[in-house]
Amino acid sequence: MPNISQRALKMPASPIRKLVPYALAAKQKGIKVYHLNIGQPDIETPKAALEELKNIHLKVLEYALSEGNLDYRKALEKYYQGLGFKDITVDNFIVTNGGSEALNFALSTLCDEGDEIIVPEPYYANYNGFSRHIKVNVVAIPSSIETGFALPSIEAFEEKITDKTKAILICNPGNPTGYLYTKEELRKLADIALKHDIVIISDEVYREYVYDGEKQCSMLSFPKLSEHCIVIDSESKRYSMCGVRIGFMVTRSKLIKDAAMKFAQARLSPVLIGQIIAAKAHQDDEAYITSVREEYTKRRNLLVKLLNEIPGVRCPMPKGAFYCMVELPVDDAEKFAQWLLESYHHNQETIMVAPAGGFYSNPELGKHQVRMAYVLKEEDLRRSVEILKNALAEYQNK
Amino acid sequence: MPNISQRALKMPASPIRKLVPYALAAKQKGIKVYHLNIGQPDIETPKAALEELKNIHLKVLEYALSEGNLDYRKALEKYYQGLGFKDITVDNFIVTNGGSEALNFALSTLCDEGDEIIVPEPYYANYNGFSRHIKVNVVAIPSSIETGFALPSIEAFEEKITDKTKAILICNPGNPTGYLYTKEELRKLADIALKHDIVIISDEVYREYVYDGEKQCSMLSFPKLSEHCIVIDSESKRYSMCGVRIGFMVTRSKLIKDAAMKFAQARLSPVLIGQIIAAKAHQDDEAYITSVREEYTKRRNLLVKLLNEIPGVRCPMPKGAFYCMVELPVDDAEKFAQWLLESYHHNQETIMVAPAGGFYSNPELGKHQVRMAYVLKEEDLRRSVEILKNALAEYQNK
Ligand SMILES: Cc1ncc(COP(=O)(O)O)c(C=O)c1O
Ligand SMILES: Cc1ncc(COP(=O)(O)O)c(C=O)c1O
Repeated sequence: MPNISQRALKMPASPIRKLVPYALAAKQKGIKVYHLNIGQPDIETPKAALEELKNIHLKVLEYALSEGNLDYRKALEKYYQGLGFKDITVDNFIVTNGGSEALNFALSTLCDEGDEIIVPEPYYANYNGFSRHIKVNVVAIPSSIETGFALPSIEAFEEKITDKTKAILICNPGNPTGYLYTKEELRKLADIALKHDIVIISDEVYREYVYDGEKQCSMLSFPKLSEHCIVIDSESKRYSMCGVRIGFMVTRSKLIKDAAMKFAQARLSPVLIGQIIAAKAHQDDEAYITSVREEYTKRRNLLVKLLNEIPGVRCPMPKGAFYCMVELPVDDAEKFAQWLLESYHHNQETIMVAPAGGFYSNPELGKHQVRMAYVLKEEDLRRSVEILKNALAEYQNK
Repeated sequence: MPNISQRALKMPASPIRKLVPYALAAKQKGIKVYHLNIGQPDIETPKAALEELKNIHLKVLEYALSEGNLDYRKALEKYYQGLGFKDITVDNFIVTNGGSEALNFALSTLCDEGDEIIVPEPYYANYNGFSRHIKVNVVAIPSSIETGFALPSIEAFEEKITDKTKAILICNPGNPTGYLYTKEELRKLADIALKHDIVIISDEVYREYVYDGEKQCSMLSFPKLSEHCIVIDSESKRYSMCGVRIGFMVTRSKLIKDAAMKFAQARLSPVLIGQIIAAKAHQDDEAYITSVREEYTKRRNLLVKLLNEIPGVRCPMPKGAFYCMVELPVDDAEKFAQWLLESYHHNQETIMVAPAGGFYSNPELGKHQVRMAYVLKEEDLRRSVEILKNALAEYQNK
């Protein structure tokens, strides 16, 4: 048998990978499964973007420029200038196959094998995957459900910085925590980055979805970080167009951009059609974003309220993104999640949740937690919590 | 300034990167540039595929399955069974963002940093990029313009195999050579692979475009290689839809597929829309492929004939793909290519070609060669050769 690389063998499986066969089996038994386990919204893609598919009159679907076509980057320039970053132009973007590829490019540009990135945990599980792929080590700093997953202390960061540290990676607002960093917290991070000459990679793919009248503060707000900041962005969640595979990285650093461009050139081109329809979505999107934000707000309020009403369940109010971390009165959230699919149903219905172990470098830290995504409509969320409540009662009596 | 990785610093630039500014400058001076330098065909995408864009009535452009959606993989199953591989099913594919990502996954699955892959040269320049990205070393074995770039001797391969060798990577038919491996040559490669327990990665993205009534022999034709073969495929060139970013890897090895799936899962999803329209293109594509093949045949015949008529120019007849390697009577093909853009025009027109140095591990080997892509229509090719002929005369008299 030929050799499989350590790189591949050590790639972590996604936190829900083990559960997928159980979900399929449940469905085969005719059980309806509510999917609270993934960030695939049921929200409709903007109509104008969908309509634009019909207006594509190209005869040849050619490669786009490796950095993304100018028309789309112009739409991004306008969007970023609208966010207040008047110095950001078409030259500051590299368009990628989703935010996923932007993360790969960012890490690849900064890190060699054995290098380290510091990430507050719990964190988006695929940060492990992108790092392992290129043999970079994630050094996690725990944040806690007690504080609603606020930024760990600056001392905690400084303790972990070594000469192998090349970047701090944050997600703001956070998946899976829903935490929204304050400007003060970000300023502290910026100071550490400059002090140690490392880069902040700021994953802001959920930027639009923050609630209670708050506004996300982008890491681009600190001009002094011009050489030390990469923002990761994506159209996947903003416009509920996850399947178009359009994301991008934004940086003021020419050094970083030129280096990242080499990876972009090797893979030739980001998706052409996605750029066309995402550019269309950016035109005049205020009403869309507002209404989606309202929808998520309602869902969040409902879900968090109902969850906290279940005895023994705790769920801090997330300020952004569309996930919440939920502490459950169970011995092992992974076993419980499996049991929900394998052995439980309530009137032929059950729920699928993401056990939180996979979001921590040390899975023990997430042993009593699951992540739920409020990507379903209110009545489905209501029903999901009802199922959870009944399931917990039954599980505890086992 | 923050650290830029060695990984990025050592990524090779594309062979034409240095020329791009000169091409832009020429255009700004009002000079028309014929692009023989890249594999972007002017051939129209199949009408049915373009029409299918108008028939997408989805309301949410969701993530596709990480391995590709079932409908598209069914189309691929049918296509591969039509090629004669009756055992290939939907489970043997992983759909990727172009053949480019499939190459990344294949190399990542087999190789750790410092590992080696053996590649007959000249080879597709981005094989260097994909390898460098993950710190894998390309070990090249020269093939020669004298033999029309036939497979190097088996001894040449065996000499290079070490315990670090994890795969042999071939391109069939070849970019940049146009060489089509015979079944006998491939059988020899299969034997070496089995003897040394290494994998053949066979890049067959130009499979449809072979000429003179010949048929490409896929590496899948050797069932004994079931655990030792990965085929790289793409819709980019087959259907002139380079911008949709749909490619895939095919393997009979469950070990390899399961390992590669981890990379696929980390980046979530290949492009949804591309899968839909590529599936449509696969329906009933015989007339399209035949007519495109005829078009390339005419172009090839014309270009190669005209080139060989220029004194001092040599161009072996390519048997497949849409490139030819051309030996020129110049001291340095890279300087000449630059001069064509920077200092030359013939009635306000010039040509852009790819200096061949970038297709060799040792650029000296390609010092007198350029690659031309016959992706332009006959009259443009005719004019391009006329420009080349005049340019050579002037260059030699300098
Ligand atoms: C925090 C975060 N970053 C990046 C991504 C990548 O998404 P995409 O590649 O679809 O842009 C996701 C997707 O769930 C995410 O949650
Ligand atoms: C030999 C070869 N392999 C792979 C590719 C990758 O193409 P894509 O990523 O568009 O499928 C190309 C593109 O030119 C190529 O020439």
